[in-house]
Amino acid sequence: MGHYKTIQIGLLGLGTVGTGVVKSLLSNQQPISEQTGCLVAVKRALIRDVNKSRDIEIQPSLITTDGNDVVNDPEISIVIEVMGGIEPAKSLITKALLLKKHVITANKELLAKHGDTLMALAHEQGVRLMFEASVGGGIPIVHMVQSYLSANRIFAIQGILNGTCNYILTQMDEMDQSFSSALSTAQALGYAEADPESDVEGFDAAYKLSILANIAFPIYSSIQQVQREGITKITAFDIANAKELGAVIKLIGHAAYQDGDVQLTVGPRMLPRSHSLASVRDVFNAVTVSADVVGDLTFIGRGAGELPTASAVIEDLVETLRTPKPQARRQQVKDNVESQKTSRTEVMIFYLRLMSQTVHDSQGNILRDQIPSDIWQEVIWHTSKKETSEIALLVKTEDIDAKIAFLSENGFTCALTLPFDGTPDV
Amino acid sequence: MGHYKTIQIGLLGLGTVGTGVVKSLLSNQQPISEQTGCLVAVKRALIRDVNKSRDIEIQPSLITTDGNDVVNDPEISIVIEVMGGIEPAKSLITKALLLKKHVITANKELLAKHGDTLMALAHEQGVRLMFEASVGGGIPIVHMVQSYLSANRIFAIQGILNGTCNYILTQMDEMDQSFSSALSTAQALGYAEADPESDVEGFDAAYKLSILANIAFPIYSSIQQVQREGITKITAFDIANAKELGAVIKLIGHAAYQDGDVQLTVGPRMLPRSHSLASVRDVFNAVTVSADVVGDLTFIGRGAGELPTASAVIEDLVETLRTPKPQARRQQVKDNVESQKTSRTEVMIFYLRLMSQTVHDSQGNILRDQIPSDIWQEVIWHTSKKETSEIALLVKTEDIDAKIAFLSENGFTCALTLPFDGTPDV
Repeated sequence: MGHYKTIQIGLLGLGTVGTGVVKSLLSNQQPISEQTGCLVAVKRALIRDVNKSRDIEIQPSLITTDGNDVVNDPEISIVIEVMGGIEPAKSLITKALLLKKHVITANKELLAKHGDTLMALAHEQGVRLMFEASVGGGIPIVHMVQSYLSANRIFAIQGILNGTCNYILTQMDEMDQSFSSALSTAQALGYAEADPESDVEGFDAAYKLSILANIAFPIYSSIQQVQREGITKITAFDIANAKELGAVIKLIGHAAYQDGDVQLTVGPRMLPRSHSLASVRDVFNAVTVSADVVGDLTFIGRGAGELPTASAVIEDLVETLRTPKPQARRQQVKDNVESQKTSRTEVMIFYLRLMSQTVHDSQGNILRDQIPSDIWQEVIWHTSKKETSEIALLVKTEDIDAKIAFLSENGFTCALTLPFDGTPDV
Repeated sequence: MGHYKTIQIGLLGLGTVGTGVVKSLLSNQQPISEQTGCLVAVKRALIRDVNKSRDIEIQPSLITTDGNDVVNDPEISIVIEVMGGIEPAKSLITKALLLKKHVITANKELLAKHGDTLMALAHEQGVRLMFEASVGGGIPIVHMVQSYLSANRIFAIQGILNGTCNYILTQMDEMDQSFSSALSTAQALGYAEADPESDVEGFDAAYKLSILANIAFPIYSSIQQVQREGITKITAFDIANAKELGAVIKLIGHAAYQDGDVQLTVGPRMLPRSHSLASVRDVFNAVTVSADVVGDLTFIGRGAGELPTASAVIEDLVETLRTPKPQARRQQVKDNVESQKTSRTEVMIFYLRLMSQTVHDSQGNILRDQIPSDIWQEVIWHTSKKETSEIALLVKTEDIDAKIAFLSENGFTCALTLPFDGTPDV
């Protein structure tokens, strides 16, 4: 392969994704070289623990525990950051960019919090900052939004952005597991961290939504603008009720742009089983982009894991080798407006789970006159659970937040509120 | 906009897609110019009928009924062909390529039959031949397979490639229409041609599958290699049976590559409702690409229509303006092997509909001992319809073709055979 130019790369991190990158570079050397005219070689790799066993062979001389050895190496022209977290990733990426090295990163938290600064720096330095692997695993959604749909104006993005939550909700739906037992299964399989907060409380999905919104819309929005809710309140009772309504519960990220205003929400929703996102199971992710010419485009793929994420990193690498010049940046207006709560005043369908001590008689029979029924436009469906004094309702209503406040003043605790997209099967 | 370079383009055809292209060029001039640095202007347009009314304003002086006026115009550097059919499209595109003009085409029949020659010519002339609009409407599947997934090896492609058939099957499923009544509805809405053969007999899907196989796999396969079956045999009885089995019927194109062998089939299949392609409704298309690093990626979008297809044309135009140099062609081996019938010898689940006069007694009661049951590994489910002497079976079997031959020798006509993907809901 003497006619290929050798390109030295540096790796920051050699965990699951880093290992996948090294493996795929080896296994798919031939198509990569044919497409780019380059032979890619790993020159240095930053690791945290030298004693940790890895399922790849790597020369001890390539390994370092000091990230500066990677970014400062003059022979390295491309740095791949797959270590995660804010520091030292931020400082190392900044150094690499200042040394005019291209950077490929999978770091969603860093991009969501400091992407604006890093992208501006990369542009200033004339190098590429690529981050396909930060959102949607192997789904080429960043490429689609940033590079492909350039003759379209995107006005909304919606999707299942967190594979861990989707796995947990799938287990609850299909295996009748409780939230905590589904979480344990996910942890045992390596789909969830020992500390699952970032996934199950929706932070991870919020980072990804923020990254997508900032490349899709002409206005900059900060991560603080995302209204976020996780899946920890979902119970087996809710899942059973969703089934009865011909629906599933999914954690959905939704970004919308209209007339200079960006709305960003992450939270659980009920979707009828015929909805295109309802059949997205397990750790799969899915994103629907709505644009003015093409209409709705949906992309589904594995949202995490060694190889899908490595695929995103390597496709970014191929793109960087083919086109090292950064693309024109879309002009964005800095949004200094106070974050506004998404208005939920229009008529929508909601699933509600209420708790009340006053709804059953002493024998545990439901007291129908105690179910709040006259404040809605329509009560489509309702059920109750004696043992826990819970009532679940599917209602059509305007101004849901005012209604919840009213219920609370009248002795009902609203334990869960889920928007219902589409038509219920009752 | 004086700092943009003006690019003159020529249009061959000003029907639905051509009109969409002109409209979108106007409405999205700003993002297109920002991304490319060019101002795109339509210089000439070939039309068939000067008297036909169109819902766009176009200067009479730009219009011609002679395609040579478009391709020979020295100021035109990009020709967009949206007229369809083999001739005169083939001659006009060949002329344009010989004059070193870039060509963007939506012509699936031409590409499936002569794509090999045209792509070689474009490469020889150093110009681009783009054809995103030929497959999957607005879904960027050609871009994904040809440009994006370049560090992956693709081994299978499967999808819903014909919007007309998908609309008809959706109507039959959801509105309990017969095939012919659903076809009439599709024709009334402009989703099906007056002569629907190309759609309902699977030719259109076969063209698209052949185009995708030829850009995805390292071996060339001709359109003759596609085993094709349409949807005209599907009856309301089949749809009702699918419902009972928790499934839907979809026209699926499937292409697989293994060890130098390409298998191409287009035909109806039963999919459980939980299958990711089952929720693809109406005129939507969907394609799943299976590749070695990324795993399965599914793309869903509108498969036809003025704007989605125009979007594909315009994204090709933007790409051509950004990168006028053709990409390296993937090396392909010419396949001179005789087309082989896909082997169906392994154990699979099939839905069968049989006709027999001997299966009911004179009162119309089903004679259970007449239902062929001992030739299968398992009869999972069966039903019958007295009025028409039809039996429907869901069986697990090896070597389905031998079993059908056996049935035929024993007085049963096999009216329909559908592979069943996944696990039936019985």
